[in-house]
Amino acid sequence: MHENKPPLVTNPRDPRFLALLNLQTSQCRSRTNLYLIEGIRHLARAVEERAPVESVFYDPSVLSNHFGRKLVRRLIASRVPTVRLATHLYRDLTLAAEPQGIGAVLRQQFVSFSTVRPIADSLYLAVEAIDSPGNLGTIIRTAEAAGISGIFLLGLSDDPFHPAAVRASMGSLFSQKLVRCSPQEFTAWSRAHGVTTIASSPSGLLDYRALSAEEPALSGRAKRWSRMGPAAILIGSEKRGLSPDLIESADFTVRISMRGHCDSLNVAVAAGVLLFEMAS
Amino acid sequence: MHENKPPLVTNPRDPRFLALLNLQTSQCRSRTNLYLIEGIRHLARAVEERAPVESVFYDPSVLSNHFGRKLVRRLIASRVPTVRLATHLYRDLTLAAEPQGIGAVLRQQFVSFSTVRPIADSLYLAVEAIDSPGNLGTIIRTAEAAGISGIFLLGLSDDPFHPAAVRASMGSLFSQKLVRCSPQEFTAWSRAHGVTTIASSPSGLLDYRALSAEEPALSGRAKRWSRMGPAAILIGSEKRGLSPDLIESADFTVRISMRGHCDSLNVAVAAGVLLFEMAS
Repeated sequence: MHENKPPLVTNPRDPRFLALLNLQTSQCRSRTNLYLIEGIRHLARAVEERAPVESVFYDPSVLSNHFGRKLVRRLIASRVPTVRLATHLYRDLTLAAEPQGIGAVLRQQFVSFSTVRPIADSLYLAVEAIDSPGNLGTIIRTAEAAGISGIFLLGLSDDPFHPAAVRASMGSLFSQKLVRCSPQEFTAWSRAHGVTTIASSPSGLLDYRALSAEEPALSGRAKRWSRMGPAAILIGSEKRGLSPDLIESADFTVRISMRGHCDSLNVAVAAGVLLFEMAS
Repeated sequence: MHENKPPLVTNPRDPRFLALLNLQTSQCRSRTNLYLIEGIRHLARAVEERAPVESVFYDPSVLSNHFGRKLVRRLIASRVPTVRLATHLYRDLTLAAEPQGIGAVLRQQFVSFSTVRPIADSLYLAVEAIDSPGNLGTIIRTAEAAGISGIFLLGLSDDPFHPAAVRASMGSLFSQKLVRCSPQEFTAWSRAHGVTTIASSPSGLLDYRALSAEEPALSGRAKRWSRMGPAAILIGSEKRGLSPDLIESADFTVRISMRGHCDSLNVAVAAGVLLFEMAS
């Protein structure tokens, strides 16, 4: 990395460093529509998925991985603004126990709910006010693995670009269709497009398997939803669940029946159980 | 809480405080066979499940909850040693963002693998070297909800009594049968008792649903496993998966097929998807 090497930032009051540090706050993220990602895997996936990389930062004394260094050279070559950071500054930007010394600033991308047009077998996920950003990121990762067509964020506090959410999403953020809208807009959208809405609640009337039970006459699981058309699974906050209005307006409410003394599952585990039962 | 009030500990070098603080290290936990729990919910479940509570600690200036104060009085009355801690000391013992001001020291409980005798429909879980204690705790919580008969811990590093594991288990730790043994002992045990072992691996030959597919002739999901007798699901580390020996010795290897660019799920989510598919 000898060519075009940017100057090394060592001063914690340097505006280039402060601009990065401020992106850890939700206020700065919503004002700028930017967010931070970190680590070689995340950056490589962002580039692969053509996510809008605004700038790159790296710690030259830590970034020893060959692939990581090549990635930086490639981004510098394509004129992405780059900041070299001293180790003590880089440390302040990372959640990783063993940082790889590379990260980037990306532009947040949402799609408008009015442009989402479901087809017959589409399955969507809607989340409302997930308390833990780590859980939200894990849900986004799980949704991608289950083949979900898009994720609706119905709570004002749901921030998929929080550093802990970004980290837990393991790069799934860059390929997922994210929609931010109000519960009322979501309900109107689902009715307009004939999307069956399935709310998850401990007091759900149906066991979650009831809706996905296979009929012997159908030749495969892929046909499950063809009877029902597109569908959306709704999941609420860890502590409070879904708001009464969303439960009320849903076509079905389902519960995950539990044994032992458990009265709940971790919200990301519950999302995984529901999504993998219904998606496939 | 006027009667029998223990003296307030304010000095960070007080041996009663240091004894608690040391239990945050794995060395001290394995030397003493003790561990810390925290919060009203956890302590109430420990008492309900008759877990061996060795001592209680609380911060009188934070513990305002009526039920929590009643719990302390009840434990003092039953002669459980109690320590009152100043707020700055209590803070050092807690992982909670908003601590409730009550915790306890419990004795670790394992059962010997030789005493575990499966019956026809028993389903067990075996985990090997889960990296994140939070994931391990979430897996224990999920296993209880799925009605698992016992959890085998096959890696030396698997510590269900790590503070982050205890916290994520949400009290499921107290009612779960935990077995610590080597992979070789587990394999010998499963063979001796006719327990079908199912290893989870991204390179698994079967889709995880293949083993639990319902036959129309069977009248309900409860009969699924009756063909196969008792079974155990094996799950390995987040980064490395199961060790080759365990995969080699398993009766089946299953994979969770994924869409998108995902090559893995969070390990606790994967455990949830497998356990809820196979347990019910």
